[in-house]
Amino acid sequence: MNDAVSVAKNVLSGKVSAVEITQATLAKIGTKDHELNCFTDITVETALQDAAYIDQNIAEGKNPGVLAGVPFAVKNLFNIAGLTTLAGSKINAGNSPAIQDATAVSKLKKAGAVLVGALNMDEYAYGFVTENIHYGVTRNPHDLQRVAGGSSGGSAAAVAGGLVPFTLGSDTNGSIRVPAALCGIFGFKPTYGRLSRAGVKLFSSSLDHIGHFATSVRDIATIFDVLRGLDEKDPVCTKRYPEFCVPQINNDISQIRIAIADGYFTQKADTAALAAVQKIATALGVTEYVTIPEAKIARAAAFVITACEGANLHLDKLRSRPQDFDPATRDRFLAGALIPGHWYIQAQRFRRWYQDQVREIFQNVDIILAPTTPITAPLIGQQTMILDGEEILVRPHLGLFTQPLSFIGLPVLSVPINQESSLPLGVQLIAAPYNEALILRVAALLESNGVIEVNIPNN
Amino acid sequence: MNDAVSVAKNVLSGKVSAVEITQATLAKIGTKDHELNCFTDITVETALQDAAYIDQNIAEGKNPGVLAGVPFAVKNLFNIAGLTTLAGSKINAGNSPAIQDATAVSKLKKAGAVLVGALNMDEYAYGFVTENIHYGVTRNPHDLQRVAGGSSGGSAAAVAGGLVPFTLGSDTNGSIRVPAALCGIFGFKPTYGRLSRAGVKLFSSSLDHIGHFATSVRDIATIFDVLRGLDEKDPVCTKRYPEFCVPQINNDISQIRIAIADGYFTQKADTAALAAVQKIATALGVTEYVTIPEAKIARAAAFVITACEGANLHLDKLRSRPQDFDPATRDRFLAGALIPGHWYIQAQRFRRWYQDQVREIFQNVDIILAPTTPITAPLIGQQTMILDGEEILVRPHLGLFTQPLSFIGLPVLSVPINQESSLPLGVQLIAAPYNEALILRVAALLESNGVIEVNIPNN
Repeated sequence: MNDAVSVAKNVLSGKVSAVEITQATLAKIGTKDHELNCFTDITVETALQDAAYIDQNIAEGKNPGVLAGVPFAVKNLFNIAGLTTLAGSKINAGNSPAIQDATAVSKLKKAGAVLVGALNMDEYAYGFVTENIHYGVTRNPHDLQRVAGGSSGGSAAAVAGGLVPFTLGSDTNGSIRVPAALCGIFGFKPTYGRLSRAGVKLFSSSLDHIGHFATSVRDIATIFDVLRGLDEKDPVCTKRYPEFCVPQINNDISQIRIAIADGYFTQKADTAALAAVQKIATALGVTEYVTIPEAKIARAAAFVITACEGANLHLDKLRSRPQDFDPATRDRFLAGALIPGHWYIQAQRFRRWYQDQVREIFQNVDIILAPTTPITAPLIGQQTMILDGEEILVRPHLGLFTQPLSFIGLPVLSVPINQESSLPLGVQLIAAPYNEALILRVAALLESNGVIEVNIPNN
Repeated sequence: MNDAVSVAKNVLSGKVSAVEITQATLAKIGTKDHELNCFTDITVETALQDAAYIDQNIAEGKNPGVLAGVPFAVKNLFNIAGLTTLAGSKINAGNSPAIQDATAVSKLKKAGAVLVGALNMDEYAYGFVTENIHYGVTRNPHDLQRVAGGSSGGSAAAVAGGLVPFTLGSDTNGSIRVPAALCGIFGFKPTYGRLSRAGVKLFSSSLDHIGHFATSVRDIATIFDVLRGLDEKDPVCTKRYPEFCVPQINNDISQIRIAIADGYFTQKADTAALAAVQKIATALGVTEYVTIPEAKIARAAAFVITACEGANLHLDKLRSRPQDFDPATRDRFLAGALIPGHWYIQAQRFRRWYQDQVREIFQNVDIILAPTTPITAPLIGQQTMILDGEEILVRPHLGLFTQPLSFIGLPVLSVPINQESSLPLGVQLIAAPYNEALILRVAALLESNGVIEVNIPNN
């Protein structure tokens, strides 16, 4: 499959029309989504209209934007004008359709991208597997018996399955990075507050990020550039951060200080996950290690905050329609509703301390490497996994290595590592807040050296 | 008693020495504190040293500051170098002495004021009565059978009893304004974040303010001017707010829009409290009313946040030394420890909504008038009071009218209203954040017209 940038080039040069691209995409979804179950809505009519409008602009000599004619789809917690925003829930299915697009969707459309539908997810984004009791399980394109990861599972599988060149997802504790890793593609979660969440159904406001999935580093950078910028409609996206242009990608990374996360970030990873990190480190000539202190407590604190904020958000419905929740989600929200307030406050206090500690680390390191998930994609229905000799639940624990990082809003790109005769894995490239450009430079080098690459199965 | 500004004038002009003032103050404390029980520590030695240093400066022609030689004392939750900071608790009595003064204490000393001691309070600032099981009850100078109010009861009674011209206190939900009203003096709580809390034992961080008690508006303004300014040591006092000089006090308030708070702020006030507000309104020619929406919910939310944050702060000691708490305080902290996290989050969410609503009101009004307390000082030991036909507990509920205002950090001055053959009362002058200067102008006019004044009993 072509990446988004090359699709746009072809459309802009007249090699292919946006309508042709859209028709082909809709046809592919019609054929393949069947088994993958990525889409919960396909916006055939508006997609073809939007594509025709792009073609018309080109015919008139206007520039329809850097993503001209590129099909994309979004996790079904993004508002799409005219569609009901599900957020993976049956309860929301009765809501009125959204009146306008989420800010992110609207920005992408303005850049010429063509929205083709909405994507499956764990109910209310609470899970790492996308085994949704209402809308079914999303299957991993590399092995249909396995999960795609979650909660943005539909978003990852749609790209990994070759249905669309890029998608949007959201990441509270790892919900972009985990499915990106398990599906063998790029998943990017920029700094907290960098991308507007206006028109996105929240889960845990102080932790929620949005981000995107794609098959090349230049796509990740280009889409990031389209999405970023302040938005008065999102109270956490109103600061005027230094504005970067799409980072200048070059191969000189000699000034970038890179280290491998040790301790916590190695302890429960299986050998393949550690080998994936080592492969990146070797390619970059990295031998330094760095310790992120108290990552285990950070994860516990992230759990407490997520559960309390999630319970707060959904409490009315937990009272009035408990039977309509996905049981796996309901139990976690109910547990969250019982957590005492002083735990939540303590978690927030720890968070400030931890943020200061990690900020210090970034005085001496620019990029930190860590596994994205401890294992490759589990089987559908698999309840537990063995990590470091301990049997633990799959659903909440695939985010072992992602959670302590999003907890303090660090930008992270999960890059794909292919393994011979096995499933793909991901490695996290982690930077200090607002240092997205550094991550993208390192990823571009790895991509140009062939260390990381996306394989679309049976494509 | 002379106010602070006139004491400083006398010292600066050589009419009296700082040492003489200090000696007289210490003598008066020695005679009168006995029955009032304001002081928990008297810093005789350092007070006399500091006073001698002021006198020496004056003799050398140096300017020792606007508060030269003015004795003052502080609630015992402010750090005083060399003394153990009690915060009204027996548990803290075993702590090491503070190494340095709190920022506020240090600023006052630099302005020439002479610290003479530390003052009694409700344990951990949780109460409105200053009936402290460890350090005794502080008595109201107007009637020794009655409470001084709390939690800064020692601070209010020390000024109202004529022991010192001014004191410092803290206000989380009304702990400056309530005792100021019940003792018939001025009590000022500037905007949240305006005055540094560095070196102050906190109670509920997102609600805690410091402020001061005095007997004249010019004292309130002068001390405010000494105390304000950013302080990197207090994370909520680090923003560079527009700096005001001591407000130009003049009698033209024709441009200031003033209104009386109706609804909630009248419903549980007794007739004397309403008459006090009316007296101020009449003097100012105010006939307008304004409704602060959902003040009752605001107070409930303030309770939830206070209880959760307080429980979080004291949980270790609640576990290890429950028997050493004041029972009245312990019960409230334990209840706070059981409040679920989603309540706390909901209270914080409501707080943002409420802040926006009240900000809107201040587009059309500059100063709002409301009673400070619903009744005059209750008897020592009095458990309940009847408000609007309902019998409710005294200790938590004297803050009925103060709590919804500090909840969103509004600056408030409680001004004293004397009643013939009855106890004094207070009226709150409330402004938008950072509009302290307006409050002081209105108060100065009321004072110059004789509508508000401080009577020191038996002085």
